[in-house]
Amino acid sequence: MPMMKAAVFVEPHRIVLQDKPIPDIGPLDALIRITTTTICGTDVHILKGEYPVRKGLTIGHEPVGVIEKLGSEVKGFHEGQRVISGAISQSGHSAACLCGHGSQDGPNAKYGFQAFGGWKFGNAIDGCQAEYVRVPDAMVNLAAVPDDLTDEQVLMCPDIMSTGFSGAESGNVRIGDTVAVFAQGPIGLCATAGAKLSGATKIIAVESVPARAAVARQMGADHVIDFTKVDPVAEIMRLTDGRGVDVAIEALGSQATFEGALRVLRPGGTLSSLGVYSTDLSIPLDAFAAGLADLKIVTTLCPGGKERMRRLMSVIAGGRIDLKPLVTHRFKLDDIEAAYDLFANQRDGVLKVAITP
Amino acid sequence: MPMMKAAVFVEPHRIVLQDKPIPDIGPLDALIRITTTTICGTDVHILKGEYPVRKGLTIGHEPVGVIEKLGSEVKGFHEGQRVISGAISQSGHSAACLCGHGSQDGPNAKYGFQAFGGWKFGNAIDGCQAEYVRVPDAMVNLAAVPDDLTDEQVLMCPDIMSTGFSGAESGNVRIGDTVAVFAQGPIGLCATAGAKLSGATKIIAVESVPARAAVARQMGADHVIDFTKVDPVAEIMRLTDGRGVDVAIEALGSQATFEGALRVLRPGGTLSSLGVYSTDLSIPLDAFAAGLADLKIVTTLCPGGKERMRRLMSVIAGGRIDLKPLVTHRFKLDDIEAAYDLFANQRDGVLKVAITP
Amino acid sequence: MPMMKAAVFVEPHRIVLQDKPIPDIGPLDALIRITTTTICGTDVHILKGEYPVRKGLTIGHEPVGVIEKLGSEVKGFHEGQRVISGAISQSGHSAACLCGHGSQDGPNAKYGFQAFGGWKFGNAIDGCQAEYVRVPDAMVNLAAVPDDLTDEQVLMCPDIMSTGFSGAESGNVRIGDTVAVFAQGPIGLCATAGAKLSGATKIIAVESVPARAAVARQMGADHVIDFTKVDPVAEIMRLTDGRGVDVAIEALGSQATFEGALRVLRPGGTLSSLGVYSTDLSIPLDAFAAGLADLKIVTTLCPGGKERMRRLMSVIAGGRIDLKPLVTHRFKLDDIEAAYDLFANQRDGVLKVAITP
Amino acid sequence: MPMMKAAVFVEPHRIVLQDKPIPDIGPLDALIRITTTTICGTDVHILKGEYPVRKGLTIGHEPVGVIEKLGSEVKGFHEGQRVISGAISQSGHSAACLCGHGSQDGPNAKYGFQAFGGWKFGNAIDGCQAEYVRVPDAMVNLAAVPDDLTDEQVLMCPDIMSTGFSGAESGNVRIGDTVAVFAQGPIGLCATAGAKLSGATKIIAVESVPARAAVARQMGADHVIDFTKVDPVAEIMRLTDGRGVDVAIEALGSQATFEGALRVLRPGGTLSSLGVYSTDLSIPLDAFAAGLADLKIVTTLCPGGKERMRRLMSVIAGGRIDLKPLVTHRFKLDDIEAAYDLFANQRDGVLKVAITP
Repeated sequence: MPMMKAAVFVEPHRIVLQDKPIPDIGPLDALIRITTTTICGTDVHILKGEYPVRKGLTIGHEPVGVIEKLGSEVKGFHEGQRVISGAISQSGHSAACLCGHGSQDGPNAKYGFQAFGGWKFGNAIDGCQAEYVRVPDAMVNLAAVPDDLTDEQVLMCPDIMSTGFSGAESGNVRIGDTVAVFAQGPIGLCATAGAKLSGATKIIAVESVPARAAVARQMGADHVIDFTKVDPVAEIMRLTDGRGVDVAIEALGSQATFEGALRVLRPGGTLSSLGVYSTDLSIPLDAFAAGLADLKIVTTLCPGGKERMRRLMSVIAGGRIDLKPLVTHRFKLDDIEAAYDLFANQRDGVLKVAITP
Repeated sequence: MPMMKAAVFVEPHRIVLQDKPIPDIGPLDALIRITTTTICGTDVHILKGEYPVRKGLTIGHEPVGVIEKLGSEVKGFHEGQRVISGAISQSGHSAACLCGHGSQDGPNAKYGFQAFGGWKFGNAIDGCQAEYVRVPDAMVNLAAVPDDLTDEQVLMCPDIMSTGFSGAESGNVRIGDTVAVFAQGPIGLCATAGAKLSGATKIIAVESVPARAAVARQMGADHVIDFTKVDPVAEIMRLTDGRGVDVAIEALGSQATFEGALRVLRPGGTLSSLGVYSTDLSIPLDAFAAGLADLKIVTTLCPGGKERMRRLMSVIAGGRIDLKPLVTHRFKLDDIEAAYDLFANQRDGVLKVAITP
Repeated sequence: MPMMKAAVFVEPHRIVLQDKPIPDIGPLDALIRITTTTICGTDVHILKGEYPVRKGLTIGHEPVGVIEKLGSEVKGFHEGQRVISGAISQSGHSAACLCGHGSQDGPNAKYGFQAFGGWKFGNAIDGCQAEYVRVPDAMVNLAAVPDDLTDEQVLMCPDIMSTGFSGAESGNVRIGDTVAVFAQGPIGLCATAGAKLSGATKIIAVESVPARAAVARQMGADHVIDFTKVDPVAEIMRLTDGRGVDVAIEALGSQATFEGALRVLRPGGTLSSLGVYSTDLSIPLDAFAAGLADLKIVTTLCPGGKERMRRLMSVIAGGRIDLKPLVTHRFKLDDIEAAYDLFANQRDGVLKVAITP
Repeated sequence: MPMMKAAVFVEPHRIVLQDKPIPDIGPLDALIRITTTTICGTDVHILKGEYPVRKGLTIGHEPVGVIEKLGSEVKGFHEGQRVISGAISQSGHSAACLCGHGSQDGPNAKYGFQAFGGWKFGNAIDGCQAEYVRVPDAMVNLAAVPDDLTDEQVLMCPDIMSTGFSGAESGNVRIGDTVAVFAQGPIGLCATAGAKLSGATKIIAVESVPARAAVARQMGADHVIDFTKVDPVAEIMRLTDGRGVDVAIEALGSQATFEGALRVLRPGGTLSSLGVYSTDLSIPLDAFAAGLADLKIVTTLCPGGKERMRRLMSVIAGGRIDLKPLVTHRFKLDDIEAAYDLFANQRDGVLKVAITP
């Protein structure tokens, strides 16, 4: 049985590089030889035991690689092709997929919907912090990488860029909007970039880490508010001359950022929430104007699928955005435990790490 | 100075019929002689002191009447014409109006938005539980009543019907949807009717009062759940075979109904909130799927303006809905204090009262 | 080799019942034993040689039946289950599918789009006017029929009802709209029903055949204009008091109906086109207001997929519409040549025929 | 009676600078002292007699100026304030305004809609190629110019920029789209800029004039096709590798550009038409895929109103776009006849002229 190395969840606080068999594939799957992957904030939640997964699971959901083998029914791809797959895998045939919510894919659920059922890699099935990964429903999920893009250039497409951009997309940012983005981690930075690409003409980011604030300006923020120094709600109201913002994007997953985003909305505005929350949320009566202010709250899980990936890669190929500043560190897969240590503790100004087997 | 009778807020727990001068009008206004009006649940909040208004204010925001006098700049109407005006009055020229959120009208606000700024009658200016009312921005707000519709037939258009229907509209109910409506007071009943008119094919109402449950069925509910006997969340999940609903409409304004509406949504579903809340709201982490289920929460304040009123009257004129069952009691304006007593205490199966000066 | 009977295109003007082998199926397919099917206007175009298909092709794209056999990779269905499939089959994995245009499915096209590529049955692959049909991508396309619905009740779902309703859906008909529907053949009748279900409050149908006019009224038309007696454009403008309609649905596929639909639109209105055209179309300068009237023209091919089918069946199961008046004649498959003769010549007030093997 | 200079339509081929009385204003109007204005392609159609206006009318619909006097009912502005007004003036109270189609404003039309009824300046009422102009419904139409923007910086907002951007907006261009823009006159150039601002990642412009092609690249075009050298349809299909474009914007008003735009659409794509046509249009059957390709054709007239103007000015203030390259020539109002001569004959690489009284 041919073996490979994989980063495996052993128990809380231990993700360990182990030897595992190279996955078998079924007729609709593809086996991908990983050439580059990365670690996500969600993986850190798994590491810390805050999000439970089964012991022995391979972690990771952001694959860049080469097709090693295709299932017997997979058409339209060839072995040796460079590909990515979205972090969220869709079946293509669930009710969720058929009504445009592939991230809520539930092919085996009775009615075809399952809350965040599309998050399979490193959650429901083995992930891609490994030498190989099995991609289910390959015809839906695999997207060919253009020759002129490097692995690192497309490394953010599977998750961070797709999620971040969806903040602007689900918030329906349009030309002339004023947008606030709460938190400028990798997803918030991509949300800022997505707001810029959607035509926002005043973008206000909230972030206290100077290095992140600097990248936020590169991504399109016109203002960056250090919430440790001023109250971000008051400051955003000041910067908008009392009007508030058209769209506020939450990119952390906390009560403070959720509530701040709600408080800076103009009547009729939209709170576009990207964060993964870990507590109940409170909607203060005054911030909600007692339910009378035509406010919207929308949440979005990272959109996947090959067409989404193609679109995101076209943004990079077209020179519309440069996400290279987000990859701050590089590790060999052999050193992934050190990478986790750096990333989980946010040392050395880390934004994203590139992991290469 | 010509005088009229008007229902005036004197102090908490006292709305009293008093003599007041007939209002003066400005160049853009109209003076309407009220022929029929009604009492809203919001008026009861004012009566009880739960929603503060200034002492001496005339209450009421649902006018049906006849144009007594037109301002010098008002064109397109004539004196003696039967008209209604939406409960929410728009200026037509604020930023809110110009981007489709007239209910958040802020013509005098610096940036043209004011949370529920369109609610003027019986809140910011004198209302219509009186013999006469001044309608501001008459060209925007007055709508001619077709000859073949009676006052009572159009009495629900200014508020209840516009608000209730907006529950389905803002929730984007479409053909084939399953919809839950929490609470079947007048607004909830109109939300049920709006869901039916929008093509919902399974409508589940939640209501414990038998008379209201019966009207709910007339309005289009396929099922009515008595929440005092069964858990409505569990029952809705049972009735949808575990799938949940596409759209849940909240029509009361409480944590219980808000939370129930959230819990019955399928992934990707929409909570359309109509209620006026009086406390902070809590979003339970599990009901929100940690922010990962592509859920939407939208709130809507009663849409107004003459085109909205025309559309709603066309629904009645076209025989698409019969709202007569909602008018359960009739009073003379002279007896409005008795009407408040009945309505505020929800005696005698009251849904809505018609008040005629 | 087990054989079956099938209606086969032999040459223009000859569709003949022949013996053919029962289809083989692949891992993603299903073999359906047809219990009821019907003939579509498109089939008549094929019969007359107006739409070319290859000789030897089995015709028909509206299957109701029972699963005889499932491909090895098909999950979520079982043999013996009653099912329908949409007339338009999607792969679930083409770019078209992934951006919500499954009817333009192009799994084998380089970029995943192919104009009306989802129309496979009786066009690109063998159809269902036969004892058996192979359904490709069964997990995407098969939808279980509720036990309490008869074959005839769901017979319109695969094409006529899905297409007709899409006229209202793509036109974005909403509560209070005035809608004109040009032509009241089976698709136009379903468009009328779809407009009613979407909340249109004045529906004006154009049709000269009295029997169809009568069914149009059953489906929701408030007025039916006989275009052989009055000019439909002038009459619609009269019935709308000079305003025009919000949405005009074209349900025939001719210059006259297309142009009529354009001419009755109010500024800002939408022409929703369902017809299959056979000639170039002309947009008269005046009807188009020189391009300045914010008009929209949208075309829609019959939406398919199992979720669409489920929704349509829920409309029938919920008692929202009764399409039984559309099935005017019944034939055995053995007599399908007679059925074609009747249907192609529109004799005896035929709307749709039910064909049972 | 105080007099002013104004460019007046005398007869076909003669627009002449004349003395006229300074306009009177009504209670809702404002009198604007023009500081900068420009000439539009539409004005050239008027000059040539191709679009009829009444003799004696002052031409021009792109005003930048200072409030000289306000009507008695106008609030929220003050005399001496720098303002612009959209080319399209809305009443704020017609049915068209109230349903978001202010450009089709029909305040005096029976039902509140009039095809391109919002185009008043230099068409229905005196325009702004003059020392003064009366702006109707000033509270709806006037927008304050930020101090840090020059007249020339905002000169494109009233028409060219609003129209051009609407090509991308009505076409619903979103992140990752491929967009073609047919013709790169001032409107086409702004359409290119609007597509870029909306997130298009491949923009293909069609233009033969080298100077315009150069500006097109500045505005965001990735490719510019000279239609005198290659067939633009074939070239766009080549540049998109056979896929076609998501959105094609027509910015001229001819059969050739309309048809080209239709032919390069992928199935499910949108033709967003901005041109003012002068002949009937033909939709070739093959380009329309017989009505089966889920295509959309949308037309948009220049959106106006103060909120629109504020948004457009925010694009410039935010540094998102630099439209200065569009102003190629400058004239005094006294020399406007020479300006017309240059502009109408498109001499000297003219794009737009700035006219200053």
